[in-house]
Amino acid sequence: MSKDIQKMIELAIDKYKDFHREGRLPTYIPALSEANPEDIGVYVSDIEGNNYYAGAYEKKFTIQSISKIITLALAIMDNGVEDVFSKVGFEPTGGSFNSILEMEKSDSPKPFNPMINAGAILVTSTIKGKSNAEKISRIVDFYRKLTGNAHLTMDNKVYTSEKETGHRNRAMTYYMKDAKIIQGDAEEILDLYFQQCSILVNCRDLARIANVFANDGVIAGTGEEVIPQNIVKKVRTLMVTCGMYDASGEFAVRVGLPAKSGVGGGIMALAPQKMGIGIYGPALEGKGNSVVGMKVLEELSKELNLSIF
Amino acid sequence: MSKDIQKMIELAIDKYKDFHREGRLPTYIPALSEANPEDIGVYVSDIEGNNYYAGAYEKKFTIQSISKIITLALAIMDNGVEDVFSKVGFEPTGGSFNSILEMEKSDSPKPFNPMINAGAILVTSTIKGKSNAEKISRIVDFYRKLTGNAHLTMDNKVYTSEKETGHRNRAMTYYMKDAKIIQGDAEEILDLYFQQCSILVNCRDLARIANVFANDGVIAGTGEEVIPQNIVKKVRTLMVTCGMYDASGEFAVRVGLPAKSGVGGGIMALAPQKMGIGIYGPALEGKGNSVVGMKVLEELSKELNLSIF
Amino acid sequence: MSKDIQKMIELAIDKYKDFHREGRLPTYIPALSEANPEDIGVYVSDIEGNNYYAGAYEKKFTIQSISKIITLALAIMDNGVEDVFSKVGFEPTGGSFNSILEMEKSDSPKPFNPMINAGAILVTSTIKGKSNAEKISRIVDFYRKLTGNAHLTMDNKVYTSEKETGHRNRAMTYYMKDAKIIQGDAEEILDLYFQQCSILVNCRDLARIANVFANDGVIAGTGEEVIPQNIVKKVRTLMVTCGMYDASGEFAVRVGLPAKSGVGGGIMALAPQKMGIGIYGPALEGKGNSVVGMKVLEELSKELNLSIF
Amino acid sequence: MSKDIQKMIELAIDKYKDFHREGRLPTYIPALSEANPEDIGVYVSDIEGNNYYAGAYEKKFTIQSISKIITLALAIMDNGVEDVFSKVGFEPTGGSFNSILEMEKSDSPKPFNPMINAGAILVTSTIKGKSNAEKISRIVDFYRKLTGNAHLTMDNKVYTSEKETGHRNRAMTYYMKDAKIIQGDAEEILDLYFQQCSILVNCRDLARIANVFANDGVIAGTGEEVIPQNIVKKVRTLMVTCGMYDASGEFAVRVGLPAKSGVGGGIMALAPQKMGIGIYGPALEGKGNSVVGMKVLEELSKELNLSIF
Repeated sequence: MSKDIQKMIELAIDKYKDFHREGRLPTYIPALSEANPEDIGVYVSDIEGNNYYAGAYEKKFTIQSISKIITLALAIMDNGVEDVFSKVGFEPTGGSFNSILEMEKSDSPKPFNPMINAGAILVTSTIKGKSNAEKISRIVDFYRKLTGNAHLTMDNKVYTSEKETGHRNRAMTYYMKDAKIIQGDAEEILDLYFQQCSILVNCRDLARIANVFANDGVIAGTGEEVIPQNIVKKVRTLMVTCGMYDASGEFAVRVGLPAKSGVGGGIMALAPQKMGIGIYGPALEGKGNSVVGMKVLEELSKELNLSIF
Repeated sequence: MSKDIQKMIELAIDKYKDFHREGRLPTYIPALSEANPEDIGVYVSDIEGNNYYAGAYEKKFTIQSISKIITLALAIMDNGVEDVFSKVGFEPTGGSFNSILEMEKSDSPKPFNPMINAGAILVTSTIKGKSNAEKISRIVDFYRKLTGNAHLTMDNKVYTSEKETGHRNRAMTYYMKDAKIIQGDAEEILDLYFQQCSILVNCRDLARIANVFANDGVIAGTGEEVIPQNIVKKVRTLMVTCGMYDASGEFAVRVGLPAKSGVGGGIMALAPQKMGIGIYGPALEGKGNSVVGMKVLEELSKELNLSIF
Repeated sequence: MSKDIQKMIELAIDKYKDFHREGRLPTYIPALSEANPEDIGVYVSDIEGNNYYAGAYEKKFTIQSISKIITLALAIMDNGVEDVFSKVGFEPTGGSFNSILEMEKSDSPKPFNPMINAGAILVTSTIKGKSNAEKISRIVDFYRKLTGNAHLTMDNKVYTSEKETGHRNRAMTYYMKDAKIIQGDAEEILDLYFQQCSILVNCRDLARIANVFANDGVIAGTGEEVIPQNIVKKVRTLMVTCGMYDASGEFAVRVGLPAKSGVGGGIMALAPQKMGIGIYGPALEGKGNSVVGMKVLEELSKELNLSIF
Repeated sequence: MSKDIQKMIELAIDKYKDFHREGRLPTYIPALSEANPEDIGVYVSDIEGNNYYAGAYEKKFTIQSISKIITLALAIMDNGVEDVFSKVGFEPTGGSFNSILEMEKSDSPKPFNPMINAGAILVTSTIKGKSNAEKISRIVDFYRKLTGNAHLTMDNKVYTSEKETGHRNRAMTYYMKDAKIIQGDAEEILDLYFQQCSILVNCRDLARIANVFANDGVIAGTGEEVIPQNIVKKVRTLMVTCGMYDASGEFAVRVGLPAKSGVGGGIMALAPQKMGIGIYGPALEGKGNSVVGMKVLEELSKELNLSIF
């Protein structure tokens, strides 16, 4: 099958190379708007250890919301399933990822799920550590272990920019402080959140993380279990129901794979027990997902019959 | 495996026999409030042709919202995927199944998905037929084919009661008429909707319908394809993302199976390529799902490792 | 002062004769879209018995939402203040006049006030009478008494058109039926509502009704009290806080008079203890108020120092 | 008339002395919850220079939201009517004073009016001054001039407490920063807002400020115009349509006077061209208004026939 996948990737990149025109680079963070919209990178890493890649698969970009998945897994490992999901819900929401309204209109101001910003900030606030420095260090170490990439770093320019201009996230955090559903210093929590969003990755990094989630929490090469299987399953489920913002329902129908996108242009997807996939294409559709990434994933899912449904 | 499943069902019924106390019989339709809250029925029908059942599996109840699944499949067969999903969305919504607000607050007044009442009424309005009589006859025939039960009928008392008191559904329908997103006479559409909701089924009927959806649209016994596979997959996906009202996200995490519940106390669930399941337990939790049904399904999914995630 | 007012009216009509271009004729009722957008009529009737008028003051148009004021007064006379305001609130709402959302998002589904459609339909449903025929006859008689115009009739074309296409109002009525906050047959209530909205008036009729409200419920010419003073005051207050749809706040700041507009192009305004004003100008701004009517009223209020604030 | 008013005040205090039991002391600021719920103070200051007072009229309390009125007048004097109302609307809203939802659900995130917290914070941010110290000094000077009380100071305990715990206001401010509708440093703006809310006043101070607004912006004793008449009229109008939070509509019907309440227990009301009124009663009804204050004002308005409607 290996040659097929390699060829498929190359063909898909060629087929969708102009589709970035249906999207736009995000403008609210200067560094993101400087990306090359024509870049497409794809990396597939199956659990037998085969890798297939093409295009701009080594191009680095900030992980952004894809971090929500990984930090959620770490937070559950730190605090337990019960504790985390007493603070944040499981339910998809028809609203936008940065909506405050969603909390205000419900009876309890608990964020709907850990994939919208409010939920992700809340989850980040539960990461264990004596100081913010220790917490970010624990997060980065976890990302390095999952990717097998010891050189993973942050993009300081993006981090500083988000910290300075991330007022919507700041508004949400203070809203949760007021509702007494978040503990600790708001600015420190935001700092941690902005830092993890600024971690630089490429398609290979994403494919390797996805591979671990596909492989029930075990690093395929070494056999080391880094995330317990029951946590992996919960996270995979949330990726399906809420991972692609308010396009998750349509993505489930069209692609049918656990996936998470970020405004940095990345999408991390996986076929359970089969493979992890990392895709890059910085032009986004209206809901914040990589246009080209969604197209390529739809193609791969159909050709390889990957849908879980 | 057969003896295991039989035993498992019997044990689950025994284990959860008092859990109906955590729920309540619905009161808004008199006939529903007269059910026996202690009834539990389970029927499992695998695609090899084995059947396992226990408890009140022959008790009849109205299908209610479970009909949304079957009528959706028929509507797509009648009109095509493109046409149906140009009128109704794919997205889960954090709101209640009978919310009008959900439509009003969005830019386009398209119902979020075919599992909320507004979406299901819209879908029902697209069923082909020269008259309402022909339409309901086509719907009932389709249900009969899927269940293999030629004696399927309607509960006239429930139908009449819903027709007389279903003012929230009536409000939604006129709202959609006003927004020009629904065609035809409102009262005729509602009549058709209330009729299909009043079809009487038991656990075996539900398990057999579910079996067809598990078996990619093919009736296991005869090999006849009654629903094209690509439609089956879309419907299964919507069952996962939106099938259990606004508890769908939690149900996906806990159970991980395509399922649809109805306020009549039934739940229809399925494990793709494996089995169809019909459950009955009339006491409902706050979101409209059978309390006992959800417990039994969680147990079966865990024991048989059925989750698709 | 009389000559001044006459001159002022004539000058205002001339000054604002082109402002209809800033608005639009409503299109949802064919009859309304056939009006002449250049028509401007003004009629002022002071409580000393002087009348000033100019332009298209005799042109007839349907009263539409201005009827909400008069029927509210009759409903309070029929049922008492306590009873009416146990069913409908006093509070302005930032939302549109035909919003269902406003009810659904609040804890109790009571309409915010009697000037939005839901509230007005509810108020209309409380008018006393053994049959709908008797109710509409009582309403028309009341309008005739207030205007002193025994020939007041309905526009059957508009009535029929609204009855056939008024699905948003129908949706609201069934929503209130479902919430059990409205009694009686929904279609009969809507029929009554559509009939009263279709009563044909001209500027003189409106000025005379307004005059009675300005004169504390007493017909200036005869001294007959037709509405108790305490009811008049309540209605005048609601005209200020909610009379001009969701432009009421701005209208209060700019004009400062109790007023009510209708999508037929009329505005009825009054200066307490001073005068009633009827204005006609069929082109509407985005919120449903006559563009020219608002301009002329702002001018008159400033020149004659009429603001109550 | 003087004796009548004095007697009326004394009788009203006696009549309503137990009504505080229908309300509650606010708990979210410790200092406020330490007030004596039995305190009632009333001060009436007419424009002829007569003063009537009784009860706890000298008791000091923090001005809280009543400051919104005075700072709004100063902001309009600083920036002009056009500029201020290009940033904040005139419209009442059915929602709570601290709702973020109200902004998010509308097309433009402009606060509905200057009486809800978001609007008031925005207005405060436009006060002129080279530094926050100069701005607060200008505000306090303005309050001193209006009250004629050169000793007006702040309650530092309340100020510090609100600054530390005012996360909902902080959330709103960052929301407006994100929407780019507010300029300047968020924490500095909030500091200014919290400072002005913490100014200590008694009933006499409020009555004197109200007197200036009743007297068209002129200090009755000296004849000095401190606020231009056209600004006074706009502010008085907003007091009527939005001054009593989401009970403004009912208050207009029951009392009919421009008024503004604060969670410190004060209400400032006025009868144009007649008198200013300051009332104190710290127990609040559900919407944040002094229970006893509303009762006393309803009584005075009826007895003295003060309603503007």
